[in-house]
Amino acid sequence: MANFPKTVTFKEEGPREGFQIEKNFVPTARKIEFINALSKTGLKTIQIVSFVNPKLVPNMADAEEVVAGIDLEPGVEYTGLWLNAQGFERAKATGRLAMKGNLNLCASESFLQRNQNRTSEQQIAELSSTIERYKSHDMPIEQGGISAAFGCNFEGDVPVSKLVDLAKVIIDATAEHGVTLKQFMLLDTMGWGTPDRIKRALGALQDIYPDLEYALHLHDTRGMGIANAYAGLEMGVAHFDACVAGLGGCPFAGNKAAAGNVCTEDLVFMCEEMGIDTGLDLDVLAECARLAEDVVGHPLPGSIMRGGSLDNLREKSAA
Amino acid sequence: MANFPKTVTFKEEGPREGFQIEKNFVPTARKIEFINALSKTGLKTIQIVSFVNPKLVPNMADAEEVVAGIDLEPGVEYTGLWLNAQGFERAKATGRLAMKGNLNLCASESFLQRNQNRTSEQQIAELSSTIERYKSHDMPIEQGGISAAFGCNFEGDVPVSKLVDLAKVIIDATAEHGVTLKQFMLLDTMGWGTPDRIKRALGALQDIYPDLEYALHLHDTRGMGIANAYAGLEMGVAHFDACVAGLGGCPFAGNKAAAGNVCTEDLVFMCEEMGIDTGLDLDVLAECARLAEDVVGHPLPGSIMRGGSLDNLREKSAA
Repeated sequence: MANFPKTVTFKEEGPREGFQIEKNFVPTARKIEFINALSKTGLKTIQIVSFVNPKLVPNMADAEEVVAGIDLEPGVEYTGLWLNAQGFERAKATGRLAMKGNLNLCASESFLQRNQNRTSEQQIAELSSTIERYKSHDMPIEQGGISAAFGCNFEGDVPVSKLVDLAKVIIDATAEHGVTLKQFMLLDTMGWGTPDRIKRALGALQDIYPDLEYALHLHDTRGMGIANAYAGLEMGVAHFDACVAGLGGCPFAGNKAAAGNVCTEDLVFMCEEMGIDTGLDLDVLAECARLAEDVVGHPLPGSIMRGGSLDNLREKSAA
Repeated sequence: MANFPKTVTFKEEGPREGFQIEKNFVPTARKIEFINALSKTGLKTIQIVSFVNPKLVPNMADAEEVVAGIDLEPGVEYTGLWLNAQGFERAKATGRLAMKGNLNLCASESFLQRNQNRTSEQQIAELSSTIERYKSHDMPIEQGGISAAFGCNFEGDVPVSKLVDLAKVIIDATAEHGVTLKQFMLLDTMGWGTPDRIKRALGALQDIYPDLEYALHLHDTRGMGIANAYAGLEMGVAHFDACVAGLGGCPFAGNKAAAGNVCTEDLVFMCEEMGIDTGLDLDVLAECARLAEDVVGHPLPGSIMRGGSLDNLREKSAA
C-alpha cells in the first residue's frame, strides 16, 4: 500500500548545483537576482553557494559576494555547501547562512577515493570528530545521509545491506555523542536509481529505523527522476532536494556527465495534482525556471515551465 | 500491491509522431534510414507514417514513398495512421502495412469538435459502421481506446466515470458485432495524466473488464511520462506506445504545445532494470535516438542516449 505524505518540503539547490557546472562565469548580480526570485516562491530552504576551491569551480569564486548581496527573506533558510574545514569556516564567516551539521557517508569506496581521496575507513573514523566540531559550534545535527546510494559508475550496484550497514554506522556514532538524527537522506549521486531500488532501500531502512524522516536527493541522469520521486512518495518520503528548471545539468551543452537534479516545479506539479501540499506557488516557480534559462543562457530540462500548470487550463475551461 | 508484468511490448511511434510536427521537410531517404534502423532494435510494431492532408501536415506528403522505400524486416509489423476513409484507402493501397482496426472514442467533446469537427453522438453513432467496414476488409479489431482520457485543455479534468461509460459503449458495440477486444488503451493526449490518475482509471476499468489487456499512450508535456508509465506497470500494464528519443515534441524549438511521447529507450531502461523483459536492445535504441536527433537537426528530450545504460558501467566496474 502506498503511504503518501500529506505535505512535502523541498530544499532548493538550483543556485549551487546549477551555476557550479556552467563553463561561462555567471555574473554575481544575476546569481543574486535568481536567488532573490527563488525567495519569493514559498521555498523555506535554499542552498545558494558552495565554498570550494575557485580554481576547480570558478563559478563559486564569488560565493561570499553572493551571500552578502542577497535579500534575506524572513522565514527562508539559506545554506551553503562545504567539503572541508576551510570551506566550513568561510561559510560560517558570512554570518548570513543557516549552519547545520550533516553527516554523510559514501556507499562507493571507488567514488570516495576519486572524489575526496579518502578511504571508507577514513570517512567513518572522521564521523566522531565531525560531530564534535559541529557541537562545539552549537550547530544542530539533524540529517544523516548516504551518497552514491543506488549505484556507482566505478563500482556498480550498491546492495541494500550496505546502506543498512552505513546507516547503522552513522546512527550509532550520533547516539554515542547524545545526538538524535531527525532525517536520513539517500542521494542518487550518479543516477543509478530506479523506482524499485528506491522502494527496496527505503523499505529496509524504515523497517529498522521507523522513527526517522526520510529524504531523497535524485539526479535525472537517465530520466528516472520524477518516477523515483513518485516511488519515494509511495514510501512516505516527505523531503526532497530539487533544482528549479532541472538546473545542475545541461544535456544540450555537450556535457554527457552533467545531468541535473530532479526538477523542482515538475515535482511540485505532481505532488499538488495528487493532493500533496507543498506550500509552493507553481506559476512563480515556473517563472523562476524561465529566469534560470535566461541566466545560464541555454535551455534547461524542466517541463512545467513549457507545458504549464493545469490549474490555469481548468480556470479557462470552467469560464 | 504492485502487479508488475513479466514482459512489456512497445508500439514505436517515433517516425509518425516525430516527423509530422517538424517545420522543415525531413527528406524521404532520411525517414527511410531511420525506420530501417528502428527495425533492427527488436521492436515488433512500428507506426511509420500517417495518411493525412499534406497541406496540413507537409511532412507526411511522402507517406506512400516512405512505405514503399523501407526494408521490411521479418517479424516486424509496420502500421500507418488514418483519420478518415480516404486515409484508410491510401494505407491499404500500399500493400505493405499491417491493417488493424482500432476503435477509439474521445473523452472530451470540446477537443473532438475542434480536432475532428464531430460531436460525441456522431462518433458513437459511427462505431457500428466502422466495425462493419473493418470486418468487410477482413481486418482484425483488437484494440479499443479512449483519447484525452485524463483531461483536456479545453474541458478540464475527465472523471473516471466517463471513462467507464465510454469503455462500455465501445465494448457493447463490439459485442453486438461478435467482436471481442483484446486490448484497451488509455491515451493521455494532452498530458493531464499523473500517476494517481493513471492508477484510478486503470483500477476502475480492470475491476469491470478484468480480462482485457491494458495499454497506455503517454505524452510527456509536463514531465510525468516515465512516472505515469511506472504507475501503469504497477497496475500490470504491459503495452506502451512510445517514441525513440522522445520524438514528437521539441521543447527547444519554441513550440510550447508540442511535447513528445514518453521516450522509448528511457522506459525500456526502467523496465529492464526492474527485471521486466522488453526484448529490446537498449544500446541499439540509444543509437537510433542519436540518429533521430541528427535527422531532425535539433536536440530531443530522451535521457538514456546521453546518460547511457548501466550494463556497460557494470561491465567496466566488474572488469
